[in-house]
Amino acid sequence: MAERSRDYGKEAIERHRESRGKISIAPKMKVETLDDLSIAYTPGVAAVCMAIAEDESESFHLTNRANTVAIVTDGSAVLGLGNIGAEAAMPVMEGKSILFKSLADIDAFPICLATQDNDAIIQTVRNLAPSFGGINLEDIAAPRCFVIEDALQDLGIPVFHDDQHGTAIAVLAGVINSLLVTGRKIEDTKFVFAGAGAGGIASTKLLLDHGATNVTLVDSTGIISRNRSDLTSVKSAMLDTTNPENTHGGIADAMRGADVFIGLSAAGAVSAEMVSSMAKDSIVFAMANPVPEIWPDDARAAGAAVVGTGRSDFPNQINNSLVFPGIFRGALDCHATRVTTRMKLAAAGALAALVKEPTPENVIPWSLDRQVAQTVAAAVARSSA
Amino acid sequence: MAERSRDYGKEAIERHRESRGKISIAPKMKVETLDDLSIAYTPGVAAVCMAIAEDESESFHLTNRANTVAIVTDGSAVLGLGNIGAEAAMPVMEGKSILFKSLADIDAFPICLATQDNDAIIQTVRNLAPSFGGINLEDIAAPRCFVIEDALQDLGIPVFHDDQHGTAIAVLAGVINSLLVTGRKIEDTKFVFAGAGAGGIASTKLLLDHGATNVTLVDSTGIISRNRSDLTSVKSAMLDTTNPENTHGGIADAMRGADVFIGLSAAGAVSAEMVSSMAKDSIVFAMANPVPEIWPDDARAAGAAVVGTGRSDFPNQINNSLVFPGIFRGALDCHATRVTTRMKLAAAGALAALVKEPTPENVIPWSLDRQVAQTVAAAVARSSA
Repeated sequence: MAERSRDYGKEAIERHRESRGKISIAPKMKVETLDDLSIAYTPGVAAVCMAIAEDESESFHLTNRANTVAIVTDGSAVLGLGNIGAEAAMPVMEGKSILFKSLADIDAFPICLATQDNDAIIQTVRNLAPSFGGINLEDIAAPRCFVIEDALQDLGIPVFHDDQHGTAIAVLAGVINSLLVTGRKIEDTKFVFAGAGAGGIASTKLLLDHGATNVTLVDSTGIISRNRSDLTSVKSAMLDTTNPENTHGGIADAMRGADVFIGLSAAGAVSAEMVSSMAKDSIVFAMANPVPEIWPDDARAAGAAVVGTGRSDFPNQINNSLVFPGIFRGALDCHATRVTTRMKLAAAGALAALVKEPTPENVIPWSLDRQVAQTVAAAVARSSA
Repeated sequence: MAERSRDYGKEAIERHRESRGKISIAPKMKVETLDDLSIAYTPGVAAVCMAIAEDESESFHLTNRANTVAIVTDGSAVLGLGNIGAEAAMPVMEGKSILFKSLADIDAFPICLATQDNDAIIQTVRNLAPSFGGINLEDIAAPRCFVIEDALQDLGIPVFHDDQHGTAIAVLAGVINSLLVTGRKIEDTKFVFAGAGAGGIASTKLLLDHGATNVTLVDSTGIISRNRSDLTSVKSAMLDTTNPENTHGGIADAMRGADVFIGLSAAGAVSAEMVSSMAKDSIVFAMANPVPEIWPDDARAAGAAVVGTGRSDFPNQINNSLVFPGIFRGALDCHATRVTTRMKLAAAGALAALVKEPTPENVIPWSLDRQVAQTVAAAVARSSA
């Protein structure tokens, strides 16, 4: 089994301590002389304020708002670490901020909230909105994340829960190319998801929007079927469009005969036997982090034709950092008021198309490819029209 | 009367439109290689998160929190422009941010709130607190600003309403040197304030803390006296320590025989006759912006020995930009949980002492003097012990 030789954790702590975190504020105007001060601050700034007071849309031209995104979390579902709280979530949010900046030149400011109450989060984001051009919700646990994102769609600026849609768009892009590589049509393909949280639910919806007809979700209790009486309303609602044959049982039952397995669940949740029981030339995205549901070598040995993970040290890293910078760049550039399904599908299509000749080892672009955000942004902006 | 020859307003709008505001985010770590990504983001960042989850105080060492201040406003009392709302307040807040950065190397992020409800503001600031090392309340109308600031003093990080205490500290520093220049002792000096808002009330309190015994406040209705039945509770409470002779009447009555006039009120509120009626060698700080209560030439001609304004184009600019960068630098450096009266008095003393030989034309340092914030910060940090 592959294991990293380098202790990134120790090095990461040292580097973070050295630099005291990862972001800072950079002025775009200088204030060295009295004239500078009179233009950037009083008395000149009064005219700038009044121009916005007269026409609020000027805030998108006369301040940095149009390039500013809030990364909002309540620290309830951070990476694979779980509910570690606001303060401890900050290093991840600062990390997202530097990805936003370096990949899409977006100024993203982390806001880690001292509350995990839905209404309080919704109201706080509403109160913050005038300072931002968009809201990236991040690492908020399901099912609360669905409620919070839904409630904020009327805000007038895009509100996008990355763990849902960033994941969904990256998954769909990987799926599009994997189906090409293995010669499948989406409408004839049987999908199984392990994990029915934010990413699993949103990915399922986006696959269905793209034409999938046969998707089955599995959570930690088993297959989400009509036989279950313990389902949350969100999971229950998914039965309108998933599990068409109402199969029930465990993950092994779900995977038998399936074409595509997408894991957003837990380390080691999938055995070689389960992969062997799938259709010929199966597609396996084992995205649990840092340890996947099954290691790529084992999945391939068990018959998988295409294998992806969430890790950067294996081929086919299915990662939402391919998505969120471009989604927001596009949405900000075209002044979108929300991120629509059409924009998400366009993003996934553009991301897939960036791989000119898909192969089993190359179904998705590389995370740090500077071209990705720009291409996704252009597709998003076009599709918003 | 002095008027600016340059149209800073027009130039300010052009420059703001050109640069789309004044601030951006600057990464302190790069993400160019896979190793970079593994240290700044996953998987390395997980160890950083867990270090904070185990010991919350590590958020002040492993993230940028210890250098980050929120500039929070509800847009209800912006400059002299009044209640122009959140969006229109942003250019001023971005201006403060670049002053924070250039004068004190503090990363200050503007948060303009879509609410003017006290409880909503208080709750929002509480929810935001984990992301910040300090909160600079800004341009919130009196008397709400008092309630909001008081309610947040238990937050564990300094919460400082600049319009109150920034102004008060700058005023006290100017007063200290003006009293030296005119040979007065504070306990024998009669002060009159025009304007009983955030700045007037806080300045009065700080003057009293520094030893003043005779201060009278005047608001737009007249002298704040025991004869008034229309006073807010905040103004009424000030009568315990002000207006010892219970004078009543208008501003002209208040100024008769006074040693020091401090105007935080409205353009042209003071006539030459009123200044002439003051004690010999009077001190006049006419700080209404952009047009002072009385122009400096007129005040001098009427007998004032020391004249200050809020403007940068006259001698003795009494400006809170001399204060807030150093106050927060000092408070952050010493990990203060609040800004105490002792720290405010130390800041005023340090600010005054920066003028080696006070003269009528030089009772306060220059706003953009790079030494000021550092000196104030050191005094604040020392006084917190």
